[in-house]
Amino acid sequence: MILKYNNIWKAAKKELSDSAHGIDHTKRVYGLCQRLAPEDVDTDVLLLSALLHDIARKEEDEDDTGRVDHAVLGAKKAEKILEEKGYEKQTIEPVKHCIRAHRFRSNEKPETIEAKILSDADKLDAVGAVGIARMFMLAGQFGERIYREVDKETYLEENLTDNGRVMKLSEHSPNLEYELKLKDIPDRLYTERAKRIAEDRMKYMEDYFSRLNEEIAGDR
Amino acid sequence: MILKYNNIWKAAKKELSDSAHGIDHTKRVYGLCQRLAPEDVDTDVLLLSALLHDIARKEEDEDDTGRVDHAVLGAKKAEKILEEKGYEKQTIEPVKHCIRAHRFRSNEKPETIEAKILSDADKLDAVGAVGIARMFMLAGQFGERIYREVDKETYLEENLTDNGRVMKLSEHSPNLEYELKLKDIPDRLYTERAKRIAEDRMKYMEDYFSRLNEEIAGDR
Repeated sequence: MILKYNNIWKAAKKELSDSAHGIDHTKRVYGLCQRLAPEDVDTDVLLLSALLHDIARKEEDEDDTGRVDHAVLGAKKAEKILEEKGYEKQTIEPVKHCIRAHRFRSNEKPETIEAKILSDADKLDAVGAVGIARMFMLAGQFGERIYREVDKETYLEENLTDNGRVMKLSEHSPNLEYELKLKDIPDRLYTERAKRIAEDRMKYMEDYFSRLNEEIAGDR
Repeated sequence: MILKYNNIWKAAKKELSDSAHGIDHTKRVYGLCQRLAPEDVDTDVLLLSALLHDIARKEEDEDDTGRVDHAVLGAKKAEKILEEKGYEKQTIEPVKHCIRAHRFRSNEKPETIEAKILSDADKLDAVGAVGIARMFMLAGQFGERIYREVDKETYLEENLTDNGRVMKLSEHSPNLEYELKLKDIPDRLYTERAKRIAEDRMKYMEDYFSRLNEEIAGDR
């Protein structure tokens, strides 16, 4: 994989946070954007967006009020960085849209092909063998259990907030994250190429959690 | 799985540490010991050992001098707990041997069938889908990278200590742990039943790391 935009990488690196959303994740999303891109895409817009999409994660993670949105703040920070490096408005504005719209819960939905590809690439990095690794890294970081036998329906009933979002629980676990959130990822993808990659990765993740369950139950 | 020895579980629970060596690991090792045990085993010795084998992990982890050995200290703590609960010397002494000998780097090697089974069960819990989960949880806890492309030979040359042990590096990663340490687990097993389970689990882990590598390289 060839990494362009050296000076922007440097600026991004300074801003990136934990191991699940850090520089390694950004590199993989950058690579996935290259894989997903058709020929008529604006490469600068797409790859600069990939590079800068998570630069406000740290602020969101460290904020206790729940009001910092890394997509909104990230777009503002990206604008500043790109202006400083001499990029033109015609690149900066669509980059800002990509970053604001990459978050699934964002009010702004992806409208351009570049924004759709970034959103897809970010979601693909949450599934497959990479997704498994990232889920357990976060579980270790936050002291979650390795596995929880919880009935999905009961869990949802007990933990839904008024707006239908599942609350963050200290008693979370990767298999719950998979059941409650990651299984829906294929329905949230925009591009056909991403859907093909997701199909294979979802199948792998499904098999992994079955196997984990079997090993824990003593059947493997 | 039926859990016996209620009062000992309670005592053990208080002593157990992080998520990779905590109560969930102890329960799985207890279950594996039941699976591996032939009929003529001393069940009390085996299961009490399983239950208490990691009760001094916290002390080893929190010790900066590198002189606390959780196997040696664990055996002493187990003796105290079992004496308090009224167990006889003929149970306590073989339990202490099991706990002292369960650690691979221990000077005391497993001599009884119960000690061999505990050692095998503990190692089986480090491989397969469970092993993958535990490795990444530890990686998250200690801020390791998700993956490191490092040549095994070079890594060993650079990081071997005088006694041939691989040093703990802050720049460690699960795939390195797998290459340098976990691949040797089948050679360290004592019982035939454990070797059969390990064969299947090692194959799964090998496939997982190949796949992880492929996804990161952009081939999946």
